[in-house]
Amino acid sequence: MSQYPPAQGAPVPEPSVRVLPVVDGVQPERADAARNRARLLEAASRLVAEHGAGHVTMEAVAAAASVGKGTVFRRFGDRAGLMRALLDHAEQAYQKAFLFGPAPLGPGSPAAERLEAFGIATLRHLETYVDLYLASERCPTRRYSFPARAVQATHVAALLRQAGVTGDVELLTQALLGYLDAGLVNHLRTVRRLPAERVEAGWKDLVARMVREDH
Amino acid sequence: MSQYPPAQGAPVPEPSVRVLPVVDGVQPERADAARNRARLLEAASRLVAEHGAGHVTMEAVAAAASVGKGTVFRRFGDRAGLMRALLDHAEQAYQKAFLFGPAPLGPGSPAAERLEAFGIATLRHLETYVDLYLASERCPTRRYSFPARAVQATHVAALLRQAGVTGDVELLTQALLGYLDAGLVNHLRTVRRLPAERVEAGWKDLVARMVREDH
Repeated sequence: MSQYPPAQGAPVPEPSVRVLPVVDGVQPERADAARNRARLLEAASRLVAEHGAGHVTMEAVAAAASVGKGTVFRRFGDRAGLMRALLDHAEQAYQKAFLFGPAPLGPGSPAAERLEAFGIATLRHLETYVDLYLASERCPTRRYSFPARAVQATHVAALLRQAGVTGDVELLTQALLGYLDAGLVNHLRTVRRLPAERVEAGWKDLVARMVREDH
Repeated sequence: MSQYPPAQGAPVPEPSVRVLPVVDGVQPERADAARNRARLLEAASRLVAEHGAGHVTMEAVAAAASVGKGTVFRRFGDRAGLMRALLDHAEQAYQKAFLFGPAPLGPGSPAAERLEAFGIATLRHLETYVDLYLASERCPTRRYSFPARAVQATHVAALLRQAGVTGDVELLTQALLGYLDAGLVNHLRTVRRLPAERVEAGWKDLVARMVREDH
């Protein structure tokens, strides 16, 4: 954990190799294959953002990336493989943003502000990818053991400590992450129909209650 | 919701009919059939408490209740039916305790104390029944729409308001309930191997942070 927390103002190393645990591991690829793959995933990400995960088909991705359908099938096997790769790709970008990106989400801002920004970034990330997260977490016992959740927990716990929070930081972290659970956010946004702004304000309130000085 | 919140010191009406939404609805039964059913479920509950849900078979319940195996099968259909009925039965007792039971869990104590007691009661309830809850919540999107969760949410929101908490009580309620999620509690207890006392202390800390005076 030598990069954690990064020194303020220090140059942020661009990770040259994949070091973060992500949802679905992949093998290293040749540079051109990796570029090709990234291009297909960018196209798929745009489709998810515009139309939702339900509308992303192998054909639509091929068309959006201007390649043949066969290329998409060779690369991802089937639609489930594409969805896993897409979630993995999105998760990497999201993790990079809160670990290495610009402040206040990335290093350089006070811990309480970074914590606020982390929740907002997570809620916005879920706004686009919630369907993929829900599809990937069929088993309720495994939800909390995902490597990606461990990355979130490490980050939140570090920020809580930096913010001077005393108490059982590990458990407070679990409570905070519970608010960012894909199933809960989906429930609040689509079943309860709460506006995104209200859910984001709820996160800020929660953080304020966690970090204010102990009584 | 005329019974909510109950006046302090007022006689607590024993609900004569099933008015609470529970995990799995059943039809009204004749008195002797209901007694029979209750006896089988008590036997099954004892088995769960002693050996865990995995060890509760139709045969074991029949033996524990001193009836023939056929009686258990006629009553519950199959093991899945028995498990649903058992969860329903346990859920009713748990709900009754926090809605109508003795203080500090039931009416009569200050709201913050009741909120503390509610979490502890929920964690202890899960300590016994977590396997059944996990088995019943296969679908992550439905977890938050269970009627039983709505009962918990109504209760927690009412206590937060009584404790004078300002802010978005509905969302703070969701954050608190996130800590009591069956999957999370299971993760903390069986994967992370945290002692029950620590998880209970974490709940108390969380409640304290929620209800202390706004800054």
